[in-house]
Amino acid sequence: MRLSSMLFATLREDPAEAEIKSHKLLLRAGYIRRIGSGVYSYLPLMWRVLQKVSQIVREEMNATGAQECLLPQMQPADLWQESGRWDTYTKAEGIMFSLTDRQNRQLALGPTHEEVITAIARDMIKSYRQLPVHLYQIQTKFRDEIRPRFGLMRGREFIMKDGYSFHTSPECLKNTYNDMDQAYKNIFTRCGLSFRPVEADSGAIGGSGSQEFMVLAEAGEDEILYTEDGLYSANVEKAVSLPADKVASPFTSYEKKATPNTETIEKVCQFLGCSATNIVKNVLYQAVYDSGKIVLVLIHIRGDQDVNEVKLTNELVKLASNYNANTVLSLTVPDENAQQKWAEKPLPLGYIAPDLSDDYIAQNKEVAGEFLRLADETVVNLENFVTGSNETGYHVVGANWGQQFTLPKLTVDVRKAKVGDRALHNQEQTLQTARGIEVGHIFQLGTKYSQAMGATYTAEDGTEKPFVMGCYGIGVSRLAQSAVEQSHDKDGIIWPVAIAPYHAIVVIPNITDEQQVKVAEEIYHNLNQAGVETLLDDRDERAGVKFKDADLIGIPYRIVTGRSLKDGKVELVERSTKNSQDIPVEEIVKIVSEMINNNS
Amino acid sequence: MRLSSMLFATLREDPAEAEIKSHKLLLRAGYIRRIGSGVYSYLPLMWRVLQKVSQIVREEMNATGAQECLLPQMQPADLWQESGRWDTYTKAEGIMFSLTDRQNRQLALGPTHEEVITAIARDMIKSYRQLPVHLYQIQTKFRDEIRPRFGLMRGREFIMKDGYSFHTSPECLKNTYNDMDQAYKNIFTRCGLSFRPVEADSGAIGGSGSQEFMVLAEAGEDEILYTEDGLYSANVEKAVSLPADKVASPFTSYEKKATPNTETIEKVCQFLGCSATNIVKNVLYQAVYDSGKIVLVLIHIRGDQDVNEVKLTNELVKLASNYNANTVLSLTVPDENAQQKWAEKPLPLGYIAPDLSDDYIAQNKEVAGEFLRLADETVVNLENFVTGSNETGYHVVGANWGQQFTLPKLTVDVRKAKVGDRALHNQEQTLQTARGIEVGHIFQLGTKYSQAMGATYTAEDGTEKPFVMGCYGIGVSRLAQSAVEQSHDKDGIIWPVAIAPYHAIVVIPNITDEQQVKVAEEIYHNLNQAGVETLLDDRDERAGVKFKDADLIGIPYRIVTGRSLKDGKVELVERSTKNSQDIPVEEIVKIVSEMINNNS
Repeated sequence: MRLSSMLFATLREDPAEAEIKSHKLLLRAGYIRRIGSGVYSYLPLMWRVLQKVSQIVREEMNATGAQECLLPQMQPADLWQESGRWDTYTKAEGIMFSLTDRQNRQLALGPTHEEVITAIARDMIKSYRQLPVHLYQIQTKFRDEIRPRFGLMRGREFIMKDGYSFHTSPECLKNTYNDMDQAYKNIFTRCGLSFRPVEADSGAIGGSGSQEFMVLAEAGEDEILYTEDGLYSANVEKAVSLPADKVASPFTSYEKKATPNTETIEKVCQFLGCSATNIVKNVLYQAVYDSGKIVLVLIHIRGDQDVNEVKLTNELVKLASNYNANTVLSLTVPDENAQQKWAEKPLPLGYIAPDLSDDYIAQNKEVAGEFLRLADETVVNLENFVTGSNETGYHVVGANWGQQFTLPKLTVDVRKAKVGDRALHNQEQTLQTARGIEVGHIFQLGTKYSQAMGATYTAEDGTEKPFVMGCYGIGVSRLAQSAVEQSHDKDGIIWPVAIAPYHAIVVIPNITDEQQVKVAEEIYHNLNQAGVETLLDDRDERAGVKFKDADLIGIPYRIVTGRSLKDGKVELVERSTKNSQDIPVEEIVKIVSEMINNNS
Repeated sequence: MRLSSMLFATLREDPAEAEIKSHKLLLRAGYIRRIGSGVYSYLPLMWRVLQKVSQIVREEMNATGAQECLLPQMQPADLWQESGRWDTYTKAEGIMFSLTDRQNRQLALGPTHEEVITAIARDMIKSYRQLPVHLYQIQTKFRDEIRPRFGLMRGREFIMKDGYSFHTSPECLKNTYNDMDQAYKNIFTRCGLSFRPVEADSGAIGGSGSQEFMVLAEAGEDEILYTEDGLYSANVEKAVSLPADKVASPFTSYEKKATPNTETIEKVCQFLGCSATNIVKNVLYQAVYDSGKIVLVLIHIRGDQDVNEVKLTNELVKLASNYNANTVLSLTVPDENAQQKWAEKPLPLGYIAPDLSDDYIAQNKEVAGEFLRLADETVVNLENFVTGSNETGYHVVGANWGQQFTLPKLTVDVRKAKVGDRALHNQEQTLQTARGIEVGHIFQLGTKYSQAMGATYTAEDGTEKPFVMGCYGIGVSRLAQSAVEQSHDKDGIIWPVAIAPYHAIVVIPNITDEQQVKVAEEIYHNLNQAGVETLLDDRDERAGVKFKDADLIGIPYRIVTGRSLKDGKVELVERSTKNSQDIPVEEIVKIVSEMINNNS
């Protein structure tokens, strides 16, 4: 392709809309253009990258026996009502776009396709003899993100590969799940990415086990905890660990103490001269269930620990049937203003006691909803602890469960694992931290959707059984940007060869020089003939502009028909190293072809 | 691919939801499944067909220098407000889905992308030196159809190739337009379709000239008029012709006559003993402009002719500025009930006079809106004509313009051309009729969008000029179904080789016969190795079921490892002709490979 006839425009300055490097570079290099919040056009160079990524995905998926299809983006509401996810996905913080058609029927734009594929399996798969089956698609998806940002990293319209497998047993699912684990590693390796598989929370998708694939990058939105020995790695949302050891309490008798201006754990420790491990911290949450029920949840957790809200949500979902609900729509920390909606006297943040008095509950129950107390595992064995008194400026010390306070019946693990914690598998390993960009996620769904939607097959023994399902996703457009986030320098993008939009760019420094033009045209023609995807910069621009643009757009090899032409040579520059060498004109095609083949 | 591990299910009976043959066959053969009104899943066999069509489109587009990209499906309302199409596309009979996001911003799901691409060009193309440029995409589009039907023929979610070109001059546009004409012919020919290019109306897309490509099929929704000499062919919406000659009027003097029960032209002719060419027919329309203005339009047209509402709409759009409007949102014929909304005394349908009395206008203007009379060219030279009297049961005869009635100032051509009319280019040619499925449409848009959206470039002379634009569409999913509509028999689909999901299917009649299995597996392996895309029917099913399924899904070549195996031969059946021959096992791969190469 000739740059002179491409839609090609680069920017010298970083655009104001972009925060992270990869987003800036893709905009500056003319790969993408923003059309609306979280919505981008993929211009010709970007589209070539996306097609290459898609082709790698397709090849690795097909190699496992998965079959490609294309499911509708527009999905009728009733399918989502069958699975019970309509409310979760459209109400409260729901991320699904919905609309009504001219007949006033409700539709959604699919962020995911469990419902559609389960309906198809229900219709088409009647017998165990048709199983297992694995279908996938590469498709534009939609999410009404609260904060679209970072370009293609968190967009409202983005490209995903999503696949769904159907099985007769968890063992058969596990085989496909393992195949996907391997296929995903192959894909990310072939795309030239540095990545790490991590244990993950299954979130709103559900199911029994799941694993994420993280591209490692400082700008990643996810925190990963891992051990040096390589045996443990998890998303912080899911990570487990041993907490630090507790320190013996300096208090021996129960007493209420004035502790002015000690709203934080740090200030309490300082004021009372104790360790954070001596403190029972009490955190108030407000959970809204999909049944409309509002529940005030008071969590007790050791002072040096924080609540992992993903784990907490999972615990609250387990209790959903107590509230005639299926799921939790939102979880927030109500400040004193928010509390005033139901309580005349709000609980004082920073000084909440591990108790809700009968009076408080009786006074507030009608307006505030249900009350629930949960103890994190870290507080169960604390003795002579420090905690709040429900009175601003006062704490109690030397408190004990079963004496001044009752330990809640429900003990849970809602603690956030953190850097420095000891690993469960080996206490000599401590957790390290890294940041990552989630580009893949595989799930063992089990029968969650098939059971909800009545999707069954006739088993070998003649009984009707629900399908055992798995699902597997890759963020194709996000992956492409994550490659840039991982691989760039001050001058621009450095594409891995396998997903570069073109392999080589032939630059004519001076298009009025007939010899330069003639040699460049020949090399351009011959490289393309040899299967090297090549650009020709034949624009009427200064050489400096052309070199800058070639660096910016990140094509792996640049060939310049410049000064060395007088010796029968052209300059070959490798983008990643900036190494430059002069190569005889008659050898350039062979050498570049070999370099491409060795690198892709 | 093995049928035993594919998502594969055929139906013996025609599904109730399908009306036309191709729709029934695609459902029965397991190519598609309906998810909602006008919304289908493309299952693995269908997706392969669509990928093959897309690849042919891509190759022919790239060969012209067009560049592939992908534009957003979700489009901000303000872009459509800039072009002035938001109301046309979302209100009244508008076919664009719209929705609001969590910030209450209005968005639309793109049925077409003139606005988005014009915004990108405005941003990126600054100079004439960057022109011409042609971008295209292959993408799922959305239309909220009033009557989704016929499967993929008129869906609400469907796949299109749409391209947009930018030029400095109409001449340059014309070159690309001609290239597209040729590329489209190449595409449809390579897909194995019998098609016809026809002159077309540009509709809501606008612009100065356009051409459609029709796949010929009885079930087509479009009527084509053409001449035997091949020199003229047009969509009936656009077609022009000479009307039949008029007959001299049998009436010589003006008279009002009782004509009871003569609401139709035929009854009037019969009752009065005259020709339909003696009659001035008066048709009342109600047009709603996007400014909200309602206009009652009375058309006078010769009795043997009908109004072409597409042509009439185009004439009314030309008058839009008279009503502070840009376009017409709807055009309907108000019956007497509808007229009663504004008129105490409705105009009697079937007896309307070629006049609107001052009294009538004065009485009704306030409620009914504006009034407008238009004369079709066919009435201008009529003498002593018959026409309505505005009184039920009475006509007048022997009337003349300038005597009893005034000819409107505006004379237009809004006549529907019809079969049997004489062609304009050669009066000895009469128009023939055929039905077609529109699979492609190319437009010379001119500056309609660039002017509305202020999309300009700096011309060679230093002035800012609006881009001259073209746009070019192919209905990819519709094309695939139209191939089935054109090519099937009582047993199923007969795919053209170039777009068949697989080239060949190897059928094992009896999977308990080890020899049959062994030979079939070898042939299956070797065909795939030779690049022949092959299915293996290794299911545990009766031979009859397998043969029926192979016919139904329409794979071009079937290889059966059956009875002739004892002679070292396999049966080769050509799907299109049902011709069968026994081929030595060692020759089958070579022979089938040759057949594929000769046919694709």
